[in-house]
Amino acid sequence: MTVTHPAGFRAAGVAAGLKSSGDPDVALVVNDGPHDAAAAVFTTNRFPAAPVLWSRQVLAEGRARAVVLNSGGANACTGPDGFADTHATAEHVAEQLGIGAIDVAVASTGLIGIRLPMDRLTAGVTAAAATLSTEGGADAARAIMTTDSVPKTTVQARDGWSIGGMAKGAGMLAPSLATMLVVLTTDAVVPAELLGPALRTATALSVERVDSDGCLSTNDTVVVLSSGASGVTPTPEEFAEALQAASLDLAMQLLADAEGSTKDIAITVRNAATVADALTAGRACARNNLLKTALFGNDPNWGRVLAAIGTTDAAFEADRVDVTINGVTVCRGGAIGDDRDGVDLTGRAVTIDVDLAAGSEQATIWTNDLSIAYVHENSAYST
Amino acid sequence: MTVTHPAGFRAAGVAAGLKSSGDPDVALVVNDGPHDAAAAVFTTNRFPAAPVLWSRQVLAEGRARAVVLNSGGANACTGPDGFADTHATAEHVAEQLGIGAIDVAVASTGLIGIRLPMDRLTAGVTAAAATLSTEGGADAARAIMTTDSVPKTTVQARDGWSIGGMAKGAGMLAPSLATMLVVLTTDAVVPAELLGPALRTATALSVERVDSDGCLSTNDTVVVLSSGASGVTPTPEEFAEALQAASLDLAMQLLADAEGSTKDIAITVRNAATVADALTAGRACARNNLLKTALFGNDPNWGRVLAAIGTTDAAFEADRVDVTINGVTVCRGGAIGDDRDGVDLTGRAVTIDVDLAAGSEQATIWTNDLSIAYVHENSAYST
Repeated sequence: MTVTHPAGFRAAGVAAGLKSSGDPDVALVVNDGPHDAAAAVFTTNRFPAAPVLWSRQVLAEGRARAVVLNSGGANACTGPDGFADTHATAEHVAEQLGIGAIDVAVASTGLIGIRLPMDRLTAGVTAAAATLSTEGGADAARAIMTTDSVPKTTVQARDGWSIGGMAKGAGMLAPSLATMLVVLTTDAVVPAELLGPALRTATALSVERVDSDGCLSTNDTVVVLSSGASGVTPTPEEFAEALQAASLDLAMQLLADAEGSTKDIAITVRNAATVADALTAGRACARNNLLKTALFGNDPNWGRVLAAIGTTDAAFEADRVDVTINGVTVCRGGAIGDDRDGVDLTGRAVTIDVDLAAGSEQATIWTNDLSIAYVHENSAYST
Repeated sequence: MTVTHPAGFRAAGVAAGLKSSGDPDVALVVNDGPHDAAAAVFTTNRFPAAPVLWSRQVLAEGRARAVVLNSGGANACTGPDGFADTHATAEHVAEQLGIGAIDVAVASTGLIGIRLPMDRLTAGVTAAAATLSTEGGADAARAIMTTDSVPKTTVQARDGWSIGGMAKGAGMLAPSLATMLVVLTTDAVVPAELLGPALRTATALSVERVDSDGCLSTNDTVVVLSSGASGVTPTPEEFAEALQAASLDLAMQLLADAEGSTKDIAITVRNAATVADALTAGRACARNNLLKTALFGNDPNWGRVLAAIGTTDAAFEADRVDVTINGVTVCRGGAIGDDRDGVDLTGRAVTIDVDLAAGSEQATIWTNDLSIAYVHENSAYST
């Protein structure tokens, strides 16, 4: 039941005709309270889409009563007119629900640089509001899909309270195309001043470590809503643990459904001087097209791992770096290690361990390979 | 005649069996003087290959008498043994030519992380030295090819002196695979203290602005040798102009032969606050897989240009940025501009003009599209 698993939430998903396929494309999630604490994390792209600009204002006070989401158009780079469209959407949701527009967060995904067909979107919101249900989570999760092949949902049930969630995004392999939208709900009693920090920590350790090519979306949005309907107040640690588990579950589903991918690649950088160094080195690998094409070709090309790390400013000595691919230490001390022919890359899961021998910190970045299907899908998207 | 066009140079190219194809794979370029001024620019990758480590020492004094180059193996990430191989290669060249090993620069290209077959390489050097000729430039240019489909050469003839050059690298689209090696020769009289700065300026404005995915090679090397055999001393400005023309000519040939590419893309960022900002914004576009796949699909997806620039710290206001693709200003003020259907992307040449409206500086970055053939070629390279 995803976002409607926790008590106090209703949701809906309808087809409004924004997608030419006729598939569902408008989702609505409503928090019926009694609480309305909320928090969000948004893209850091300097061309934030109109719904991001709007929702930042909504969430500024740590409150929200509803989230309306649409696929079929990102409403990004659409100027003041696009912002007016987002505002009008929130106003229409508010009218339907008898709340204020400033209580309504908006999220959009689809092609950048085109206006939304507002007549269709408005009619879709009306229809969604009319079908809101405590069983509507699955419909909502389906309505936010773009190139996703399956809906992504999660439920983390704890002692008398739970967290539900849904996500869209066919892998961070293409976040600028397949924007990541995540809605998390909880019936735990969580004050807004705890919700924000918990969300930022949870995303920093999950979705923000799924990385591929640095193509940062204009629309990425992660929202968490708390109804408090369970009446249970977990400890901050308990809540943080569950929120991170929900975020990580969704992140791994995004990874598994990445556009055209044939590999799920976990790059762990160990013995770094700092976590930042480990992340920098891991991201350099995750964004290296040569490494990603090699892995698509089942080639344990560890030289491309070193070449990628060699472009960073992470602390390391070149002759002390080890690289292990799927358990075989193919590079020792920056030079030739065990026989690369011993590396089995036929499965979907690939682990790359890089030992920088420069400290005691570590971090893992998840990515996918760069496949022919990825190029095909992304070259044919808008045409 | 490429590197042997200027007086005072001999060259050769032979097949030593380093490549399984049997194609030529060892090249030798010798400066017979009377001068031996030389300068070089090397990769900034922190895992420099053995020949880069060696050649930095050779060039440290601003002198060199010969350059030996091999394809069929990069001799990168090969540790002390690999360095010994490079040293032995230089020693063998020196013996053949009756000069010192410290006069011999070495450059290698091919797969990272494998040792060179030294018996074959040594025999190849012997054969190359035996066939050195003032007509040997074309053979040398052919022997340094890897995935290049054609040899790249240039001649810049001036009043009584000239510059010759050869390059390999199937586009900077894949410099870590198809390392860029460039040898430039001149019979002008140019003191070493002028040669270095002129080379750094020439490369900064040419090969270093051909960029694609940030995959920096472990082996990139650009060397210039001056024989002084013409007896003519051009002004520093005259020499700098010719050297830059030679570098740019080779850079455009690299771009045109990029692995699997179907587009040559020139990204010009105008009205930037600084040249650095223009380069940063241009490189962000050149490294954005979503934009590059869109262009492969003949899709003028300007939203991906903004999304790429939006990840940088270049100075601009989001609502003042214009984007023009092949003459059509598809984005005005960060929002929808002229009809994207008016953009003709059927040809190989693509120009993307970004106006940041933040100053008066500009720079152009050249790149290629990301094609299915690129993925295919790079996934199948070493297997």
